[in-house]
Amino acid sequence: MANTKNEPHISQAALARIPRYLLYLHKKRDQGERYVSSTEISQDLNRNPVQVRKDLALISKVSGKPKLGFDVGELIDAIEGFLGYRRQSEAVIAGVGQLGKTLLSYPGFSDYGLKITAGFDLNPKLAGTTHNGKPIYDIADLSDYVKQHKTVFGVITVPAAAAQTVADLMTGAGIRAIWNFAPVHLSLPDGVALKNENMAASLAMLSLRLRALEGDDPQ
Amino acid sequence: MANTKNEPHISQAALARIPRYLLYLHKKRDQGERYVSSTEISQDLNRNPVQVRKDLALISKVSGKPKLGFDVGELIDAIEGFLGYRRQSEAVIAGVGQLGKTLLSYPGFSDYGLKITAGFDLNPKLAGTTHNGKPIYDIADLSDYVKQHKTVFGVITVPAAAAQTVADLMTGAGIRAIWNFAPVHLSLPDGVALKNENMAASLAMLSLRLRALEGDDPQ
Repeated sequence: MANTKNEPHISQAALARIPRYLLYLHKKRDQGERYVSSTEISQDLNRNPVQVRKDLALISKVSGKPKLGFDVGELIDAIEGFLGYRRQSEAVIAGVGQLGKTLLSYPGFSDYGLKITAGFDLNPKLAGTTHNGKPIYDIADLSDYVKQHKTVFGVITVPAAAAQTVADLMTGAGIRAIWNFAPVHLSLPDGVALKNENMAASLAMLSLRLRALEGDDPQ
Repeated sequence: MANTKNEPHISQAALARIPRYLLYLHKKRDQGERYVSSTEISQDLNRNPVQVRKDLALISKVSGKPKLGFDVGELIDAIEGFLGYRRQSEAVIAGVGQLGKTLLSYPGFSDYGLKITAGFDLNPKLAGTTHNGKPIYDIADLSDYVKQHKTVFGVITVPAAAAQTVADLMTGAGIRAIWNFAPVHLSLPDGVALKNENMAASLAMLSLRLRALEGDDPQ
């Protein structure tokens, strides 16, 4: 797997919990609360207090004040900074099949300040249409679009046989991070971040967990 | 996160590589090859030889014979045993929206001996239809279906507000492992395996990787 030496020191499971904290803190601020303790957060969100403290320590250097807790505004700033809310974070998708459409209409990306702006496909019938309000263009226009919009993220949901070609097209146009759903190993230039997604392996992982729970060690 | 103490000793990234080995070994066996070395595998699949040796050691107790390599048939049996090919491995999906449909038509699950057999939805217009050849039923019929088919895996792709209700329905009917795509914490009975999937957190993880590559430490 490429780039594992650059793995951030936070698990994806912890990352999945962060937007909920942010939503909660915004609500607290809107209610005029100046401070909040990790105990209060864990009670209100019905979460393990140890996990809450660990999560907050991972994403923020802001420390709680004795008897007062965290400064709500400072903690919001720290989390938004961690999530990169102030960075360019637009993505394009190549491959507007079932999976591409699902991602184009997936509502959760904005929780992380990420936005999929357009889809690209080989199918001439799709070019010029929209999905969930996002424009779909011919794959031949991907390079110009990425250069013009300085898009950083590329999502690959084309069939395996086309994935490397699309990856080359993307990185050649300036894409610096690829989220790959095609079941194939991509060769990428140095300095390009990669995350492979394999839905089947994910379900298979659940199967192994079940067997471990049942004491049927698959090893 | 529930059940982390039962986490299998293999990463999802390694798990994602396994079906490719199996396909390769079946081809070797069909060609009449009796033995294959890890060096040969790594060359033929264009993979790092150290990674290949580690992967094979994780999934199989079969060891290579000096100068001969692995017995192809034994290695195939070991991998298929590891992946649970001889176990019941059927799944149902609750929530046949865009994401549910994507999973119903996703081709890769069979690589792991897993099969999604039916979808369930609240929408009465969907009941009685099919998607990718899979029947869609009313959610009210989920419990009977699961009991009758002794289904083990449940996939939750309903909105967050409905996810706990669906999880209760599933575990009440005998489902023992849940793959949850709803952005919500599920309370499950002891002994039920859980894997939460958060697509937004996955894309956010790529964003953190990119920042680490660029030397912009998000901490």
